[in-house]
Amino acid sequence: MTQTHRQIVLAEIPQDKLAPEHFRLSTAECPAPGEGEVLLRVLYVSLDAANRAWMQGATYRSALKAGDVMAGGALAEVAESRAEGLAPGDLVFADTGWREYAVVPARHLTKLPRSRPLTHLISVYGIAGLTAYFGLLECGKPKAGETVVVSAAAGAVGSLAGQLARIKGCRTVGVAGGAAKCALLTAELGFDAAVDYKAGDTRRALRAACPDGIDVYFDNVGGEVLEACLFNMALHGRIACCGTVSQYDGAAPPHGPRGVPGLIVTKRLTLAGFVVMDFADRWPAALAELRTWVESGALKVREDVIDGLENLPAALIGLLAGENVGKRMVKVA
Amino acid sequence: MTQTHRQIVLAEIPQDKLAPEHFRLSTAECPAPGEGEVLLRVLYVSLDAANRAWMQGATYRSALKAGDVMAGGALAEVAESRAEGLAPGDLVFADTGWREYAVVPARHLTKLPRSRPLTHLISVYGIAGLTAYFGLLECGKPKAGETVVVSAAAGAVGSLAGQLARIKGCRTVGVAGGAAKCALLTAELGFDAAVDYKAGDTRRALRAACPDGIDVYFDNVGGEVLEACLFNMALHGRIACCGTVSQYDGAAPPHGPRGVPGLIVTKRLTLAGFVVMDFADRWPAALAELRTWVESGALKVREDVIDGLENLPAALIGLLAGENVGKRMVKVA
Repeated sequence: MTQTHRQIVLAEIPQDKLAPEHFRLSTAECPAPGEGEVLLRVLYVSLDAANRAWMQGATYRSALKAGDVMAGGALAEVAESRAEGLAPGDLVFADTGWREYAVVPARHLTKLPRSRPLTHLISVYGIAGLTAYFGLLECGKPKAGETVVVSAAAGAVGSLAGQLARIKGCRTVGVAGGAAKCALLTAELGFDAAVDYKAGDTRRALRAACPDGIDVYFDNVGGEVLEACLFNMALHGRIACCGTVSQYDGAAPPHGPRGVPGLIVTKRLTLAGFVVMDFADRWPAALAELRTWVESGALKVREDVIDGLENLPAALIGLLAGENVGKRMVKVA
Repeated sequence: MTQTHRQIVLAEIPQDKLAPEHFRLSTAECPAPGEGEVLLRVLYVSLDAANRAWMQGATYRSALKAGDVMAGGALAEVAESRAEGLAPGDLVFADTGWREYAVVPARHLTKLPRSRPLTHLISVYGIAGLTAYFGLLECGKPKAGETVVVSAAAGAVGSLAGQLARIKGCRTVGVAGGAAKCALLTAELGFDAAVDYKAGDTRRALRAACPDGIDVYFDNVGGEVLEACLFNMALHGRIACCGTVSQYDGAAPPHGPRGVPGLIVTKRLTLAGFVVMDFADRWPAALAELRTWVESGALKVREDVIDGLENLPAALIGLLAGENVGKRMVKVA
């Protein structure tokens, strides 16, 4: 084991768009686990739009500060254990931050089953898959035959949420940026239609793609796409509020979409926010169901793996700009 | 019976604030009922903020047009019947419009029990009471000990919703405009606290009045008060979206409040819009429960009765400016 290791520090809190100079690569002494702790070797760091939101202020976790090692979840392997129930070689998912080694309390860690490929533990069998599953099924409550719209549909969560809606018998429409992503949605992931939000009037394009209105909207982006969906919702529609990526990478969030709350009233809509951790007691059952669909080929998993710890800042900046398809992660070891 | 009667026509669709010149008093021939219809003599016209929203565009009913008799619900008495099940003297609530006599199909009418005072049929036992009941209990789902905030709390719906929350064992905070209304809420209607939204920083005042956050917000107004509540919601809070009176009397509705959808996600909020007609099958049970509370004195009913058909335009304009306390109606006969 090395005596020092590399880590990436959030050097400065961005006031507007995130840029490379907000990060700093540094070398630190390799930490040693205390009683009840484990030393983890980070294998793959998960890139998530929420990483950027953590820099804006308190969310479901406290805000990041300048000088902190950048926070982030990762698939990691136990290198040394001073805790019962975890042994060297065991796999866990933990908030290690962006570094090669991390010491974390074992209390909240769950040993993961080995899976092939390992990366699935961070995509479909990780937070992304579970977020798609609970957000769609619990907040969206789609019924067969209904129309489901998913935004950021080529992203990690969206690409799975849309496919789950199709598996549940819904007409599925994805919103994504650019013709290439839209083609992927319909040609490879089985979406019934795709709307390119960069191509002009999203509200009108959604009306054409959803002639009976939108019964369920799985919202990963907020902002203008949410507004366009609000105006196309069917009576008694449900909106699963998962994330607001359109609003993370800038100054303070702008005003909310028009139609709030007017259209919520007249269309009797329900908007429900959720955080996947709230469903932790039901993750095992969800994972078993996801596994069945992946193994049958009904659910296709797209991953976007970048190599090297030093590439984490560029990987996150690129994710916020929408350059990834499927679940983005960085291979650290 | 008169051969002609008076009615008020919406002469022009307002582009901004509603004003007397948008209405015109006229005389028309008294209509005669056809087969399956009844002739109604209008007793009390209900004034509702939604009357103004109907001029903006389609809501849960089609939009009003210039030249239409102004729409509105009223307590009315059957003057002549050509329909089974309804006889002269029977009381009904119907969308008669603003006029002294109206012919309506009997199909959708329900005979109301006589009640003392009659006006209660238009306030606590009418749409206002039922809206407070279903909005609070079905969308808000308050639990004893929780904090419930109601806006337009001195209004017809709000004054009842807040009292229902108190009856359910909640800490109840009303938002209203001006010191006099706020004093009424705490001194007469049993609210635990009141916030005057005209007195300055509503977000801060709500934080002081709701130190543990808001569990249920019954939203009658939208706009800035909704925004102030969003920032003070407790985790897993519920917002019952009932109306948006802050946005009816002007040009096109402005942008929605900041914090949508960001705070919906991080606080796991649920926003649910509703229209009281959706609960029609459960009105009888709700009315029975409301009656128990009124008769025991637990639920106080405030009414604001103005005399004379010709005063309807001023009564609506004043209601939109917030001049009423409790349920406003105009006595026509």
